[in-house]
Formats: sequence, C-alpha cells, structure tokens
Amino acid sequence: MRPSGRQTNEMRPVTIETGVTMHAEGSCLIKCGNTHVLCTATVDEKLPPFMKNSGLGWVTAEYGMLPRATNTRMRREAKNGQSGRTQEIQRLIGRSLRAGVDRVALGERQIVVDCDVIQADGGTRCASITGGWVALKLAVQKLMKAGVVISDPLVDPVAAISCGIYAGQEVLDLDYPEDSEAGVDGNFVMTGGKLIEVQMSAEGSVFSRAQMDGLLNLAEKGVSELKAAQMAAVN
Amino acid sequence: MRPSGRQTNEMRPVTIETGVTMHAEGSCLIKCGNTHVLCTATVDEKLPPFMKNSGLGWVTAEYGMLPRATNTRMRREAKNGQSGRTQEIQRLIGRSLRAGVDRVALGERQIVVDCDVIQADGGTRCASITGGWVALKLAVQKLMKAGVVISDPLVDPVAAISCGIYAGQEVLDLDYPEDSEAGVDGNFVMTGGKLIEVQMSAEGSVFSRAQMDGLLNLAEKGVSELKAAQMAAVN
Amino acid sequence: MRPSGRQTNEMRPVTIETGVTMHAEGSCLIKCGNTHVLCTATVDEKLPPFMKNSGLGWVTAEYGMLPRATNTRMRREAKNGQSGRTQEIQRLIGRSLRAGVDRVALGERQIVVDCDVIQADGGTRCASITGGWVALKLAVQKLMKAGVVISDPLVDPVAAISCGIYAGQEVLDLDYPEDSEAGVDGNFVMTGGKLIEVQMSAEGSVFSRAQMDGLLNLAEKGVSELKAAQMAAVN
Amino acid sequence: MRPSGRQTNEMRPVTIETGVTMHAEGSCLIKCGNTHVLCTATVDEKLPPFMKNSGLGWVTAEYGMLPRATNTRMRREAKNGQSGRTQEIQRLIGRSLRAGVDRVALGERQIVVDCDVIQADGGTRCASITGGWVALKLAVQKLMKAGVVISDPLVDPVAAISCGIYAGQEVLDLDYPEDSEAGVDGNFVMTGGKLIEVQMSAEGSVFSRAQMDGLLNLAEKGVSELKAAQMAAVN
Amino acid sequence: MRPSGRQTNEMRPVTIETGVTMHAEGSCLIKCGNTHVLCTATVDEKLPPFMKNSGLGWVTAEYGMLPRATNTRMRREAKNGQSGRTQEIQRLIGRSLRAGVDRVALGERQIVVDCDVIQADGGTRCASITGGWVALKLAVQKLMKAGVVISDPLVDPVAAISCGIYAGQEVLDLDYPEDSEAGVDGNFVMTGGKLIEVQMSAEGSVFSRAQMDGLLNLAEKGVSELKAAQMAAVN
Amino acid sequence: MRPSGRQTNEMRPVTIETGVTMHAEGSCLIKCGNTHVLCTATVDEKLPPFMKNSGLGWVTAEYGMLPRATNTRMRREAKNGQSGRTQEIQRLIGRSLRAGVDRVALGERQIVVDCDVIQADGGTRCASITGGWVALKLAVQKLMKAGVVISDPLVDPVAAISCGIYAGQEVLDLDYPEDSEAGVDGNFVMTGGKLIEVQMSAEGSVFSRAQMDGLLNLAEKGVSELKAAQMAAVN
Repeated sequence: MRPSGRQTNEMRPVTIETGVTMHAEGSCLIKCGNTHVLCTATVDEKLPPFMKNSGLGWVTAEYGMLPRATNTRMRREAKNGQSGRTQEIQRLIGRSLRAGVDRVALGERQIVVDCDVIQADGGTRCASITGGWVALKLAVQKLMKAGVVISDPLVDPVAAISCGIYAGQEVLDLDYPEDSEAGVDGNFVMTGGKLIEVQMSAEGSVFSRAQMDGLLNLAEKGVSELKAAQMAAVN
Repeated sequence: MRPSGRQTNEMRPVTIETGVTMHAEGSCLIKCGNTHVLCTATVDEKLPPFMKNSGLGWVTAEYGMLPRATNTRMRREAKNGQSGRTQEIQRLIGRSLRAGVDRVALGERQIVVDCDVIQADGGTRCASITGGWVALKLAVQKLMKAGVVISDPLVDPVAAISCGIYAGQEVLDLDYPEDSEAGVDGNFVMTGGKLIEVQMSAEGSVFSRAQMDGLLNLAEKGVSELKAAQMAAVN
Repeated sequence: MRPSGRQTNEMRPVTIETGVTMHAEGSCLIKCGNTHVLCTATVDEKLPPFMKNSGLGWVTAEYGMLPRATNTRMRREAKNGQSGRTQEIQRLIGRSLRAGVDRVALGERQIVVDCDVIQADGGTRCASITGGWVALKLAVQKLMKAGVVISDPLVDPVAAISCGIYAGQEVLDLDYPEDSEAGVDGNFVMTGGKLIEVQMSAEGSVFSRAQMDGLLNLAEKGVSELKAAQMAAVN
Repeated sequence: MRPSGRQTNEMRPVTIETGVTMHAEGSCLIKCGNTHVLCTATVDEKLPPFMKNSGLGWVTAEYGMLPRATNTRMRREAKNGQSGRTQEIQRLIGRSLRAGVDRVALGERQIVVDCDVIQADGGTRCASITGGWVALKLAVQKLMKAGVVISDPLVDPVAAISCGIYAGQEVLDLDYPEDSEAGVDGNFVMTGGKLIEVQMSAEGSVFSRAQMDGLLNLAEKGVSELKAAQMAAVN
Repeated sequence: MRPSGRQTNEMRPVTIETGVTMHAEGSCLIKCGNTHVLCTATVDEKLPPFMKNSGLGWVTAEYGMLPRATNTRMRREAKNGQSGRTQEIQRLIGRSLRAGVDRVALGERQIVVDCDVIQADGGTRCASITGGWVALKLAVQKLMKAGVVISDPLVDPVAAISCGIYAGQEVLDLDYPEDSEAGVDGNFVMTGGKLIEVQMSAEGSVFSRAQMDGLLNLAEKGVSELKAAQMAAVN
Repeated sequence: MRPSGRQTNEMRPVTIETGVTMHAEGSCLIKCGNTHVLCTATVDEKLPPFMKNSGLGWVTAEYGMLPRATNTRMRREAKNGQSGRTQEIQRLIGRSLRAGVDRVALGERQIVVDCDVIQADGGTRCASITGGWVALKLAVQKLMKAGVVISDPLVDPVAAISCGIYAGQEVLDLDYPEDSEAGVDGNFVMTGGKLIEVQMSAEGSVFSRAQMDGLLNLAEKGVSELKAAQMAAVN
C-alpha cells in the first residue's frame, strides 16, 4: 500500500495556473500534489557568448528551492552557493526543454526558464520540467503574437515524471515519503511519445531489465496525463 | 499626481494570507499592491553559538528575491552570492523583528524568518518586516499551544512602511515607479506607537527637518493600517 | 555621566591632517578622539561601465579596518571577504559623498574614496564620511588647479556624526563604551544645513519622536563643528 | 562506419594496471583506448559526520581531469572551483560504487576513491567507475589481509559503459569523435547482471523504447567484457 | 647612478616609532624611506589547532596593503581575496619571525603579527619583517612584565633587507624605481649574524655566484644597521 | 647516514619519458626517485591581456598534486581553492622557465606549462621545473618544425634541485623523509652555469654563509646531471 492510498499507477492531482507573475513573459504555478513550483520564462534578445552568430536560439534553466520548501529548513543557497544536486537538476531541466525546441525557428534569442520550488513533496525536478515547458510556451506565444517569431518552435509538450520501486512494487509519481524509502527510482522525460532523458538510479540496490520496462510503462501513462494538463493550460 | 492615482497619504491595498505552506511553523503571503512576499518562520530548538546559555531566545531573518520577481531578470544570488543590498536588508529585518520580541519569554530557541519576494513593485523590505512578524507570531502561537512557551513574547506587532518625496510631494508607500524617481525616501519601522528604525536616504538630493516630520506623520498613519491587517491575520 | 566625562552635547576633539600619503590625489588622517581613519581619494579618468557616456561624474567609496584597529583582533577581511556590515558602511559613505557633489561639474571621471580605520573607538563610519569629504575636496582642488575641472563640484562639506540614547540620556558623538551599551543610536549625514541620511536603529529597544528630535538637535550642533574643522583643513 | 573502424558492438581495448602509486591502499591505471584514468582508493578509519555510529561503512568518490587531458586545454578547477559537470560525475561514481558494497561487512570506515583523468577520449566517467572498483577492491583486500575486515564486502564487480546512437546506428563504447556527434548517448552501470544506473540523454534529439532496448543489449555485452578485465586485475 | 642619488651601499633613512595604536599588545610604524608599514602584535592565549598541547608557542603573520599605498590604486583584497603574492609574503614574514623565537620559552600561546603597508616605495616585505620583530618584542616585553613569560624568547633581532643588481651594479635597499628595473633582486633575512632566508630571483635575467656574494656582503651591512634601529626602538 | 643510503652528494635516479599524452604540444613524465610529475606544454596563440601587442611571448605555469600523491590524502584543491603553497610554487615555476626563454624569438604567443604531481616524495617543485622545461622545449620544437618560430628561443636548459642541511650535513636532492626533518633547505634554479633563483629557508634554525656555499656547490653538481638528462630527452 502506498502511504497516500493511491493506486500504483495513479498520479497525484495536477493543476497548472498560468499568468501568475506580472513581469515574466511566461509564467505558471504547477502543483503536483503538495509539490508546488513557480516557473517563469524570460526572453533575452542577447544570446550567451558561446552561441553568438550561430543562427540558433538557446533555452536554459535555473532551479532553486526556498529554504523552508522542505520539512526541515535547508541552508539558503545564496549564502553557500549552489549544491551539486541543484546544478545537476538545472542542467537536466535545460537539456530536456531544449530537446523539444526547434532552435532555428526560435531565432537568435535566449529564453531563461526559472523554476523555484515553493513547497516540496517529491518530484520537484519533474514538476519543474513540466511547468517550465508551459512557461516557455507562453513566452513563445507572446513572441509569435508580436511577430518576431513566425513558425512555432514548440510543437509537442515536454513533460517529466518519476517512477520507482517502493515496497517491492513499481509505482508512478513518487511523493516524498515514497521517494525517501525507494531503493530504485527514476525520472523520465518525454515528448511526442519518444524519450528525451532516462535517469534511473539505485541507492544501495539493483534492478532488472523487466523492472525497468515496468517503470517505462508507468512513465508513458503519466506523461500522457501531464500532456493533457499542459495543453489545457496553454490554450 | 502619483502614477497609480493614489492620494499622497494612501496606501496600496494590503492582504495577508496565512498558512500558505505545509511545512513551516508559521507562514504568510503578504501582498502590498503588486509586491508579494512569502514569509515563513522556522523554529529551531538550537540557538546559534554566540547565544548559547544566555537564557535568551534569538530571532533572525533571511531575504531573497526570485530572479524574475523584477521587471528585468536579476542574476540568481545562489550563483553569485548575496549582494550587499540583500545582506543589508536581511540585517534590517532581523533587527526590526527582534526589537518587538521579549527574548526572555521566548526562551532558549531560535526562530528563523525567511522572506522571499515572489513579485516586486517597491517596498519589499517593508513588506518583509510586516509579513515576517505575522509568520513569527503564528510560529509562537504554535509554541504556546504546545505549552513550550508560556508567556507571549510578542505583544505588539512590528510593521514597516516606506515614505518619500516624489515630484516634490511627501507620499506614503512608494511603488516602484515612484521609488525609482524619488530623490528622498525612507523606511520606518514601528511598534506600539514607537519607532524602531528610521532609514532616510537621499540619492543626489537633500531634505529638511520639516520634510522629515511630514514623512514621519505619513509613516505613523501607514503603520497603524498595517497593524490592523496584521491583527486580523493572526486572530 | 558619560564614561569619558564629556557633557551630553560635547564632541570628542577632532583633528584633520592632510597630505598624509605621497601617492593619492587627496588624503587626510582624521582623528575623532581615539578613532583614527586614513582617507584617500583616487582620481580615475575611466568611469565605471554603468555610467559610461552619461555626461556625469561618479564618486564611490570603500571601507576597511585594520585587523587590530579594535580591542579584540578581528579576522582580516582579505581572507574572509567583506562582511555585510562593511558593505553596508561603504555603500553609506558613497551615497553620502555623492549627495554633496555636482556630478555635471565633476565631468566624466570617477573618484574612489578609500577609508581605512587605523584605530577604532566608535563612530568610524561618521569619521570616514567627514574625512572622506576632505580627501575628495583635495583631489578636486588638484583637478581644478590642472584646469580639467572648471566649476567647483563640491560647494558645501558633507559631514556625519553619531548620536544615541545612553543611560537614558541623549548624547552626542558616542565612543565605543557608549556605543556598545546604547539601546538606540543613529548616524546623521548633513550638508548645508540639510539632511542627507538618517539611520536610527534600536537594538532591543524603541524610541519616541521626541527623542528623535532631541538627537537631531545634537546632530546639527555636531555637524556644524565638523564643518569648521573640514573648512580649516582644505583651505 | 565508426571513425575508429570498430564494429558497432566492439569495445576499445581495455587494460588495467594495478599498484601504480606507492602511497594509496589500492590503485590502478585503467586505459579504455585513449582514455586513461588513474584511480586510487584511500582508507580512512573515520566516517564522515552524517554516518557516525551507523554501524555501516561509506564509500565516496572524487573526480578530476588534468587541464591538458583534453584536446583543448581546460581551465584548472583548482583555480575556478568544480564545475557542475564534475560534481555530477563524482556523485554518479560514488553512488555506483556504493551499490556494489555490503556496507555492514565493510564496517565503520570510509574509503575515498579518487579518479583523475590523465588523458581523455570519451567515456571518462565509465572508465572511472570500472577502474574505481578495482582500486576499491585492492584496498579492501588489504583490509582483509590485515584482518580488520572479515567478510568480503565486494562480491561482484561494478562496471560501466557508454552506448549511443551515432550516425543512426546503435554503437558500444563511444570515443570522443563519436560522443561529440551523437544525438543520443547513455551510461549504464551494472553489477551481477543487474542495473545500478541508467543515464540516457538526448541533446537536441529523441529516442524510442526500441532504441533503448538495443543500447541496453550492447551495454550488457560491454559490461561482461569489463568484468573479465576487472577480475583479471584483482586476482 | 641611483635615482635617489644614494651610494650603492647606502640604506634609506630608517625610523621606528613604537606604541602607535592603543589596542595592540605591541605596535610600531616603521619608515624605510617612503615605505611605511604599521606593525601590530596580538597575543592570543589560544594556540591554533595544529599546535595544541605541543608545549610550544606559535608566531604567525598577516600582510596587507591599503589600496592606495601604491602609485596606482590596487583593487582591495577584501573584495577579491588575497593574491598569491600577498600569501607568499605573509608566509615569509611568519617563517622569518619564528626563526628568531625560542618557542619553548614563549609557552603555549600565539602571537599574530599584522603588517599593513600604509605607503609603498619598494621593500615592503623587508620593512614588515624588521618592524614586525619590534612589535613582537614589545608584546613579549609586556608578557614578561606581567610574569606570564619568564625567560626572554627573543634574544637577537630578526631583520631583513633587499639587495639587487640595478644598472649593472650591486646596490643595497632598492626603492621602487630601482626594484621595477632591476633584473635581479633578493631579500635577505638574518639574525645574530646568521642567515634565515635568502630569496634571490631573476626576472628575465641570470646572475653569477660572485654577484650573489656581493649582494650578501651588502645585506650584512644593511642588517647590522637595521639591528641598531631595532634595539633603539625596543629599549 | 641518509635514510636512503645515498652519499651526501648523490642524486636520486632521474628518468624523463617524453610524448606521454596524445593531446599536448609537448609532454613528459619526469621521475626523480619516487617523485613523479607529469608535465605538459600547451601553445596558445593568444597572449594574456597584459602582454598584448608587446612583441614578446609569454610562458606561464600551473602546478597541482593529485589528492593521493602523498602518504596522507590531501583535500582536493578543486574543492577548496589553491593553497598559498601551490600558488607560490607555480609562480616560481613560471619565473624560472621565463628566465631561460628568448621572448622576442618566441613571438607573440603564450605557452602554458602544467605540472601535475602523480606521486610525491620530496622535491616536487624542482622536478616540475626540470620536467617543465622539457615539455616546453618539445612544444617549441614543434613550432619550429611548423615554421612559425624561426630562431630557437630556448638555448640552454633550465633545471632545479633542492639541497639542505640534514642531520648536520649538507646533502643533495632531499627526499621526503629528509625534507621533513631538515632545519634548512633550499631550491636552486640554474641555466647555462648561472643562477636564476635561490630560495633558502630555515624553519626554526639559521645557517652560515659557509653552509650556503656548500649547498651551492652541491646544487651545481646536481643541475649539471639534470641538464644531461634533459638534453638526452629532447634530442
């Protein structure tokens, strides 16, 4: 039995509220159960130096957590620098979002997606990718309305979900009580029915290819539900 | 005329929503017009080293801004370290809140107040103090309900408001368009009808004692309105 | 009674020795009782990037303390980075000095004022502002003699003094024994009879508007005495 | 055709030379083609603070590259701090090695595995895991000979290999020319025929579950060859 | 001909003023021509961790320059961290002073010598050693007067002087115009007629053993003159 | 008697293997007994900013140690920043190599020499200079073969050796057991029979000019043997 009483293939309720800040070109507050992430997209007409004159656009991401987003207060990263975990997560978000962008169509500009966790209950990196895509899409819609981008560079949503083996069972969308106990867990990023990233990790444990297939099946189910929520939010 | 059409002695609408995060011992989201600050209070039964065995409690504060809380995206402080401005503000918040605490009554424990600006439109340090006191009060109420604090260490609210000279006129509660133009502005922290901090500053300008008196009159009006909102929120 | 035996409205003796270093365009050693600060002004014909092509000059300040300027040796900031307190003080010195400069008359150049505390006994930030203005004035006089600045951008001295409530009494120019005991203290920066900055702060205490008026009266007396010392030093 | 002329399922030649430094408790130089990594294992009888009194041992890893291990000289991390990539890699190495350790059998001590890339040609993190396990095993053998560890905590080797999709084909053990062109690549860590970590990533691309299965097949072949090299090295 | 008109074996005038700060246990302002260094000695009854329970005392040094001690303003090290040059100099000062201390006689305490350059004209590290010894001696005299140190741990002064080859000639005590031109220069630290440190360095040049002997002869002359000034200062 | 059984004027065996990495323009692995240093030379056609348009080339060096190069594992400098000792050593290597370069003949380019200690047993800075010169020479030979450098900028080898006073005797080429006991030790850098750097240092000891002459005699013998090894390696 899962602590939340959910079925093994049952996601937490997902809501995506858009337009939540007055300044950003695109923004949303995504809630996956008790995990709440504020995502904003900032359009910058200057490319980073390594992309200058490439004819391509760029999308990057940054990730943070408010100190008391978690059950025990964490030290503020502004005082101590970004942890390795934080850097790893924001690199994942950036790679994932870029995989769903037609960078020629975006043109020579950069979009920075900020994902800040307001409240954490497991799955913050997946919620950041899913919500980050919505913020990105809203910013691009604004560029298209303004006529500076002509052809839509974002065709299919990019979404991510975690799965893992909890108490011997393959389960979808781990919350924190499950995540902290699971010997095996993974994050799956998908778009258009295809995979972008698979990150499976066993802490003090191992897993078989059959289990991996089971988790991939769950992930496909989850991502298709997230896609529906994303499409509803941006239309 | 003020850009917002407000009277010179008219505050922006203030709302304080409490209990906004599941983890913190006390929390609120304070909105002063378009300035939105999430405040949480964390109870730590360990005192910082310099207060050990003093018989007194301690209250401290940290302050941050989400990168796109502002009109132009700011660099993330987790990547670059806290600016001098950030450190100055969080020291002010901590001093201000401590001035309203009976540290003997609080007992040998620390409360950390985190103030994170979700959206900025001027006056973020004042909103942080005002909202920070509410989060602090809620955490203390929890300690009192649990019986670990007996006598209430927070008698009268601590609140703060900015005033300044805009277009030659003394005005209350500057928003960002006013703040960026004002030659003189100040922050006033008060409790129980008395002053805790006065920080008046002229950038490329000067001011007279008569003007200072005028701003103090406005501040007293503003703080009494904030106090009403604070009392409503915590009861 | 004050520890030093001074009257409540009595300043410590002030001396300002000019031309104390061979390299700087302007320099002085200001002694306010046992607080000694070495101030130098460096003319830089290059503006900082954010002021380029503005038609305006810029004045900025940096502040430091020798490790054994204080009774107990402090850790060297070169090894640990500038503290929040140091950054707050040097921002104040810079703002204060700029408020007394006609930046059009100064022309497109920067003057950096370094204030280094050789010996500390309270009031170092105020001595830095008062002495810093003298160093700045001397550097400007040199520019005027050389004909690169035509109209004097520094008309009236900028000076600063601390006041506070010590043992229940409003006193002028706190030394360290007073400063470490005072529940309320403030720094007042003035020029030409007007105010530039007021920073009043109560640590674990509060104060009334009447007390604030009393401190302002003392500050006005103190600043007029400092102005006389400044004028004597630069002529 | 692969740039090296290898078959799609053909590894580069692997050699593992042990006992390469006089100081470390265990050490090897692993060469996977032109990728050369020096791995050392250091036994520390003190556990890190978060593991104290747990009854369990700990294994951790650090990773570095000499500045000219690569074709273009990289900035020295000692001057600039560890990059996000470096931190991500060393976290992966540590997790991977821990998954193959019986931490009860190891007892309350820590082993630190240092993996320093002397020459890089793709696949440095995989070579670090494979060679790191050998260094770890040698250090454990020393502890067992000394009688301080009784039951072998390392039963089956942990090894890792990269696979990817290069020029539309699934290939095993990417070298740098392939790695820099591949749209999809992954790292697979295995032990005893089971998976520990799967990290698949598509930069500007996507992949299907069928392709993922193909890569897993290649990885299983590669890891079985690496295991043979590891067993030969430690016996 | 030397720029200053000095003979090749002629030192700049040296003065050592003691008791220049009210807080430090020992202090002096040493002037070697236009090079002025403020030296303070702080007694700390706590040893650094690596010396605990050794039965020996410890002497260490820190070095700094005010930003405008030089002809062109240098960046403040508190903002940028200590340069390699600064660290190298303070390690030299510490080693040099320790070589002249009987650490058993000093007993289990630490003395920290701070050397801060107020004005620089070449030879600041040598002036720091020579003046640093005076501050150290004064602090020790205080400990002996207080009866906490019985046998004098400082028998013979430690002093240092620079020599170099300027315009083809061996010269004593280089000032900045000479130092910046000299192809070869060195610093010689001596006590009791013996050597403690010799640091000779050729930038874009080389030197013979005969030249080295000539410089050592000059250094012996210089150090004997410095010793006289030191003895006069401390008696 | 020396711990190694060597004569007082006997060096450890020296081997220099060239061409040890595939990427660097010049490289060698130098072994001085159990001290092993990997040296690479990287040609950079861009000069550092302070040398632009000078008509001169530049040579600089960086130094590092693998964490377990030593008997006790050291903390990785990439995690903690370069120590003062590391910076001091790499500045010495750079100065020493530059002293043997005709910078006009080298032309407007930079060569960066990286010296990374694989295994340490005393004398790592000297081995770095001696091996660094070989890597530098090999890189220059490549530039001459390519015709971009015409006249050889490296005429005579630069080599370095340590000497010291161990157990009262002057000895050549200290290994770690000697180095950690010696009261006096020094590093001598030479080229073409002349001196470039002399760094003699006494920790808790002093030395006479006669002893210094004895050490210089030993150093001359050692450097002539190193020169022979260098010439054999580069021809």
